[in-house]
Amino acid sequence: MGVGLIGGSIGLAARQRISAHVSGFDLAPGASQSGLEHGALDVACASLVEALEGAQAAFIATPVGTLSQVLSEVLEAAGPECVVSDVGSTKRGVVAAADDPRFVGGHPLAGAETAGVAYARADLFDGATWYLTPTHATTGVLYERLHRLLRDLGARPAALDAETHDRLLASVSHLPHVLANVLVAQAARALDRDGERLPATGPSFRDATRVAGASTAIWSDIYASNAEALVTTIDDAVRRLQTVRAALVEGDREVIEAWNDDAREDRRRLLEADLAGGPVHELRASVPNRPGVVADVALALGGAGVNILDMALHPAPDQSTGVIALWIAGDERARQAEALLAALDLPVARV
Amino acid sequence: MGVGLIGGSIGLAARQRISAHVSGFDLAPGASQSGLEHGALDVACASLVEALEGAQAAFIATPVGTLSQVLSEVLEAAGPECVVSDVGSTKRGVVAAADDPRFVGGHPLAGAETAGVAYARADLFDGATWYLTPTHATTGVLYERLHRLLRDLGARPAALDAETHDRLLASVSHLPHVLANVLVAQAARALDRDGERLPATGPSFRDATRVAGASTAIWSDIYASNAEALVTTIDDAVRRLQTVRAALVEGDREVIEAWNDDAREDRRRLLEADLAGGPVHELRASVPNRPGVVADVALALGGAGVNILDMALHPAPDQSTGVIALWIAGDERARQAEALLAALDLPVARV
Repeated sequence: MGVGLIGGSIGLAARQRISAHVSGFDLAPGASQSGLEHGALDVACASLVEALEGAQAAFIATPVGTLSQVLSEVLEAAGPECVVSDVGSTKRGVVAAADDPRFVGGHPLAGAETAGVAYARADLFDGATWYLTPTHATTGVLYERLHRLLRDLGARPAALDAETHDRLLASVSHLPHVLANVLVAQAARALDRDGERLPATGPSFRDATRVAGASTAIWSDIYASNAEALVTTIDDAVRRLQTVRAALVEGDREVIEAWNDDAREDRRRLLEADLAGGPVHELRASVPNRPGVVADVALALGGAGVNILDMALHPAPDQSTGVIALWIAGDERARQAEALLAALDLPVARV
Repeated sequence: MGVGLIGGSIGLAARQRISAHVSGFDLAPGASQSGLEHGALDVACASLVEALEGAQAAFIATPVGTLSQVLSEVLEAAGPECVVSDVGSTKRGVVAAADDPRFVGGHPLAGAETAGVAYARADLFDGATWYLTPTHATTGVLYERLHRLLRDLGARPAALDAETHDRLLASVSHLPHVLANVLVAQAARALDRDGERLPATGPSFRDATRVAGASTAIWSDIYASNAEALVTTIDDAVRRLQTVRAALVEGDREVIEAWNDDAREDRRRLLEADLAGGPVHELRASVPNRPGVVADVALALGGAGVNILDMALHPAPDQSTGVIALWIAGDERARQAEALLAALDLPVARV
């Protein structure tokens, strides 16, 4: 649902990499037609119901503001074995709107630069983090299918509860956009006050403001749907600015130096965090067949920063229990995962 | 005086482009020796007085915190026909410290990324704005000599009073550094609170925080010497954040949309201001990760006389492909660039 850059790239990757049969629907008839021409779809459907007929997995790739509405239509039309996900940049709203075992919220960190199916690429998600926000309502077997599908598309799925997702994204994405807007507004006014003099702004200003005034259609949805977390984050930023301001007024050199040193260290850690790797370990945990257990596992590991490279769920024949296999990168990470699984009372073995 | 990245680059450019005889002095003896080896100097001097003997122009390229002291020593030692300038990032302090007809404050917008004469380049200032802050005390003939010398070094000298310079730089340089520090600190704390989880931060976060924790030695001087203007600028930023915050709390969609549209317009105007030559267009092209593709783009556009105002390369997470953003001035030029990119088989969109 929604044949644009993201929807189209999902279609391309699914067709090319796992020979999936992909049906697409878009309110704009030109979009699904164009998706067909670009090889993103096998069928351009005339309705949402038609697109969902027999589907094993459905992705809603429409604007954030429309997600809740489209989701309820999709859940209505989709079969009982169809996993349904979305690709919106904020997650609390849509997750709160659906309490359905088939739904798992999603957010791929990819493809913000261009829009439209014409720019869709089969490799758009290669190596990209793809956040998933399962809840206790989520069916384990459908979550596992989605996880494996995303791996097949090239992405790295990582589970996170919707609230944490939105709070983190407020810090690492939404606030940077707000500050870029503030910076260009201030610089532009500094010009005006000085009689239209035109300053050279330099590369660091251009880097810092590259995202200023990003697509209003996309970003006003994001700001509106994450207003609460963003307000908290703005308040935090203001407090931090007031602290620096006080040190500047006091001429407190030591505070300024320590603050700047800390920022360098923080930046180093953030960059490192994005790159973690190491040898891959396979863990197997016995899981009871109770609702939400797969979500518990995914959230416990995702919340601790343990990246699940791949997962497989093996139900016992009687469906009452099963084994979940997890592949984790890094010795330390694997040990951490074992401890987290043990803390969930799940017997775990390293293969 | 001061044989580092900037001092060394002035020496290299002056020697190579106008066959100047360049003497250098640095408190660290290794620095001037290294400058000699890198071809930045004709003579590595043992004292400031020796370096200034017979000089027609003198540049003070020492840390901002030392400028006033070094300047008074230089003015003491320099002859009556020697124009004296500095390269400090803030100008009110040093300009207030000297009321001498031979002194013109200066600030090249170049070379913040690395330090040390080993990174000096003769072309460091090519096309770079080089602010000059003459006062009514400045001798016309010496100012003109300095202006011409800077043109010969490849720079674009632009005169500005010291107060306006510091206020503008607070907006376009010092505040962006402060905000980058605030952003990484917040993101790092968001991690900690969520149990050391390590988020994927994405390219826009990396762009926005590229200057976080820049050299404490350099930047604590800059912050201290421009504290007054920076405090005013921080207050302005806080007011703007409060305005956005209020609109978010109110859920006032129209205000958010207008604010974001204004930011896009401000950014466009700021880029335009730097270049002149018509309205700025942003083009985005998908590029494969093959050697030379960026060079191909640059050469195709350069060869056709299309000036790339700014560019940013966003690699896909797996590095196999990416998007290149190009900012081009002028309607006709942008159309031309689109055609050239299309001729290279690169899908291109205008943003």
